[in-house]
Amino acid sequence: MTARRLARLQAGIRRRGLDGFLVTRPDNRRYLSGYTALDHGIEETSGVLLVPARSTPLLLTDSRFILQAREEAAGLRVEQYRQGVIPLMERLLPELGISRLGFESDYILHATVLRMEKMARRTGCTLVPVTGLVERMRVIKSAEEIALIRKSVRLNEQVFRLVHSTIEPGMTEREVALAIELTMRELGAERPGFDTIVAFGDNGARPHAVPTDRVLNTGDIVLIDMGLVLDGYCSDMTRTFVAGRPGRTFLERLRVVRRAQRAATAAVRAGAICRDVDRVARRIIAEAGYGDLFGHALGHGVGLAVHEEPRLSPRSRRKLRPGMVVTVEPGIYLPGWGGIRLENMIVVREDGCEVLNEDTTGLDL
Amino acid sequence: MTARRLARLQAGIRRRGLDGFLVTRPDNRRYLSGYTALDHGIEETSGVLLVPARSTPLLLTDSRFILQAREEAAGLRVEQYRQGVIPLMERLLPELGISRLGFESDYILHATVLRMEKMARRTGCTLVPVTGLVERMRVIKSAEEIALIRKSVRLNEQVFRLVHSTIEPGMTEREVALAIELTMRELGAERPGFDTIVAFGDNGARPHAVPTDRVLNTGDIVLIDMGLVLDGYCSDMTRTFVAGRPGRTFLERLRVVRRAQRAATAAVRAGAICRDVDRVARRIIAEAGYGDLFGHALGHGVGLAVHEEPRLSPRSRRKLRPGMVVTVEPGIYLPGWGGIRLENMIVVREDGCEVLNEDTTGLDL
Repeated sequence: MTARRLARLQAGIRRRGLDGFLVTRPDNRRYLSGYTALDHGIEETSGVLLVPARSTPLLLTDSRFILQAREEAAGLRVEQYRQGVIPLMERLLPELGISRLGFESDYILHATVLRMEKMARRTGCTLVPVTGLVERMRVIKSAEEIALIRKSVRLNEQVFRLVHSTIEPGMTEREVALAIELTMRELGAERPGFDTIVAFGDNGARPHAVPTDRVLNTGDIVLIDMGLVLDGYCSDMTRTFVAGRPGRTFLERLRVVRRAQRAATAAVRAGAICRDVDRVARRIIAEAGYGDLFGHALGHGVGLAVHEEPRLSPRSRRKLRPGMVVTVEPGIYLPGWGGIRLENMIVVREDGCEVLNEDTTGLDL
Repeated sequence: MTARRLARLQAGIRRRGLDGFLVTRPDNRRYLSGYTALDHGIEETSGVLLVPARSTPLLLTDSRFILQAREEAAGLRVEQYRQGVIPLMERLLPELGISRLGFESDYILHATVLRMEKMARRTGCTLVPVTGLVERMRVIKSAEEIALIRKSVRLNEQVFRLVHSTIEPGMTEREVALAIELTMRELGAERPGFDTIVAFGDNGARPHAVPTDRVLNTGDIVLIDMGLVLDGYCSDMTRTFVAGRPGRTFLERLRVVRRAQRAATAAVRAGAICRDVDRVARRIIAEAGYGDLFGHALGHGVGLAVHEEPRLSPRSRRKLRPGMVVTVEPGIYLPGWGGIRLENMIVVREDGCEVLNEDTTGLDL
C-alpha cells in the first residue's frame, strides 16, 4: 500500500519538475512509509523522508529510532544521522543527483529552511517550497482507510458510553476527562487524538474549554468533545446533554443544533461545495435567532490527522468528493449560559453520505 | 511580573532596531502574558503576541479563546481575529506604526512567513527573522519560578513513590506508564510533560523507549523517566531499579552512573562551562569502561518547556549562571542487557548548586 502511495508521489514530484521531495510532516511520513514513530513537537522530529523522483525513497532518522525505522519502513533505504539531518542531506543530495528539492513549506520551521538553504548553496541544490502535495493524496480515503476510521469512531463511542453511564453530580470536569482518557487506553486506543473537552454549565460557552475542577450539579449542561487514535486513524465526536432533566430552553436550543446537523448532513454528497454545506447549518441557526453564536466552521476532514482537509467552512469553495471523511458539528454558544455542540463523522459518497456514528445519546430529544 | 518581562522584551526589541516583535512560541507567550491556553500543534495556535517597541502589547486570538485571553492577559490589549491572524496584522501594523517587525524564526512555519511577507509588502513593513530573544530571558529563573519548579519536582516525586510502591512482576510497561499518568492528574498536575518512559529489561537500552505490553519479571531492570506540568512549570526525573534483588553487575553499573551524577552535580556552579560539566560525568563513565554507551548529553534546561537552554552537552561552551535550572542525567545503555539512567534537577547557585529532588530511590545502593 505504501509502495503505491510512494509511486504516486514520485509521479507528482516529476510533474513539478523536481528531482526529489522532503517529507517533514509526521502524518505524511506515516502515510507514505508505514513508520509509526511520533514526533515530540515540530522541534524534535523522529525522522524525515527523502524521496528522489525516480529511485528508492529514504527514511532518515537518529539512533533513538533506528531500530523501529528498520522494522517498519519496509522497502525504504534507512539512514541514520548523528549530527542532525541537514549534514546527512548534504552528503546524500549529490549522491542522489538531486538539484531541485521540494519541501513541505507548511510543516517546517522557517529557521530550518534558512539552515537548509545554506547547505543547499554548498551542494548546488535549489529548494522549492511546496504545499499540500501529500495532503491532496490523503484527502480521499481508500476503503481500507475508511474501515480503520470506522473502527476508531466505534471505539470512541464505546468509551463515551462507558463513561457517560458513570457521570453523576459531584464529579468534576477533570475527573470525567480523565476517566475518558483512561478508558480510551484501557480499550486499546493508541492515545487521545486531542485534549478531551468536558465542560459543565456555562463553561461550555467556550468551544475549546479546558476541563477544570468545577463540580457537576443536577441540571447542568454537560458538553463532551472527545476523540482517539486507533491504528493511526482519528475519531472525533461531541455530545451535549443535561445532568438530570433537561429544561425547556435547553431542549429548544438542542433541537435547533440537531436540525442544523441533520440538514447539513443531508446536503453532503459528491459535488457539493463545502461552504454551501456550511451555509445550510448556519442558516438554520441564524433563523432560530442564534446567528452570531455559531462562531466556528461546520466541520473538518479527519484521517491520520484529527484536523485536515477539507474544511466545511463559510469560505471554502472546495468540492466534496467520494471518500472524503468530515465532521459535521454545528453549535451555539451563549456566554453565561453554556454551549451546545453535536458532532458526527461522515463519509462522502457519490449520491449522499454515510454517517459513521451509531451513538444517539441526546441527539433526538 | 509579566509587565516587567514585557518591558525587558521591549528594551530588547528597541536595541535590535525593531519597532515590534511577533511572539508565536506558546511557552514564550505564556511567559510574557500569563495567558495559559495551549496550542494544538504549531498549526493551530491559540494566539500570538504582537509587541510594539514602545506601546501596549497586544494578544491576538480567535473566538474560541477570547474569554480566556481577556481574563488572563491582564494589561494587554486583546484583539480577536475572524479571518486569521495575518489579515488582522495587516490592519494593526500601520496603526501601530510598525515598519520593522521581528518574528520567531525558530517557531513559525515557513509557509506562514511566506504569507506574512506578502502582507508585509502591502503595508510597507520589513520582516526580520530573530531567534532566542525571549528564550534568553527565560533561561535565568526568578525565585518565584524556582519555587514553582520545586513544587513540580516534588509532586512528580510523590507520583513516582506512589506508583513505585505498587510495581510488581506481572505488570506491563504500559500499565505502569498509565498508572503514572493517571496519578499525575489525580494529584493535580496539569498534564504529563512528555510521554512517560517505562522500560523493562533490555528495552531500557533505548534511551527513548516507548512503553509496550512487555510483562515485568522478577530480576528485571526497571527504568522510569517521568515528568509533569504544574502551574505551567515542568519536572523531569529518571530512576532505575530492579524488580527484586539487584545483581552484582547491575549494582556495579548503577554505582558508575551515580558516581558520574554526583561528580557532575558537584561541578555545577555559576561560571562553569556546560561542556566541562558534561565531561566530568562522561570521563567517569569512560574510565569505568562504558565510554561508548553514554550517547546523549548530560542534561538540559527545564522551565516552562521540558527541554530548553542551557544544554549540558559535549559541544556547549555556554557559561552557567545563577538561577539556571538543569537536569543531570548520565546513563549507560547496553543493547541486549538494558539501560541505567539517573536524573535529578538542580538549580545553579553562585558557588554551587541546589538539588531539587529529595527522592533517593535506588540512588545509593
